[in-house]
Amino acid sequence: MTATPESLNATSSACCAPATDTGECCSLSQGVISAEDAQRIARVLKALADPMRLRLLSHLAAQGCDSVCSCDFTEELGISQPTVSHHMKKLVDAGLITREQRGKWAHYSVVPEAFAEICALLDLR
Amino acid sequence: MTATPESLNATSSACCAPATDTGECCSLSQGVISAEDAQRIARVLKALADPMRLRLLSHLAAQGCDSVCSCDFTEELGISQPTVSHHMKKLVDAGLITREQRGKWAHYSVVPEAFAEICALLDLR
Repeated sequence: MTATPESLNATSSACCAPATDTGECCSLSQGVISAEDAQRIARVLKALADPMRLRLLSHLAAQGCDSVCSCDFTEELGISQPTVSHHMKKLVDAGLITREQRGKWAHYSVVPEAFAEICALLDLR
Repeated sequence: MTATPESLNATSSACCAPATDTGECCSLSQGVISAEDAQRIARVLKALADPMRLRLLSHLAAQGCDSVCSCDFTEELGISQPTVSHHMKKLVDAGLITREQRGKWAHYSVVPEAFAEICALLDLR
């Protein structure tokens, strides 16, 4: 984490902390989750459940709060720009990352709250 | 958690602790993960990424360390025995739960280490 650690701490000051203050968080260990929650969470997990998307995410997450240029992923992972765009769109649609167009290139950032929610869900302590 | 919380604590005494002592754990925030790790983790996430399996898991996880009889899921979620068996097999194959046959019925238990590994992976603090 190289930039604005305060903002990250605000959303995930404790590991597996509830993702939001609005009580939207649920956990697998608290009883049967609703059909609506299950649909929503399954969509996010499906976006995550791809080897290339996990590798792209790991490159992005390693930059902490910094956004990463699209061009950076092609170099780091040796894949084409259309492939990067295809996978990143799935992650944006799932709410796991955000996309900002700057001139020719798209820049991506992680959404820590989305990861905190999944982490809270899977915390079976 | 109703039974033997000590055994759970032994495997996940800290939230998002590394899943094992063998250094197998990886995190998205530590740099680009290997193609092999990405394949393995994607398989586990794919097993999780289904609304019915999330609901079945939430019923199982709510019992803590207790195993749960197959018949219990059909009652709780109003689904057929073949549907339970189909989804539970995917979770067993992914290493997220274990299955033990006791007479006519299968009994299932969560594997806390498998969840701790995914949680550690997604911990972007």
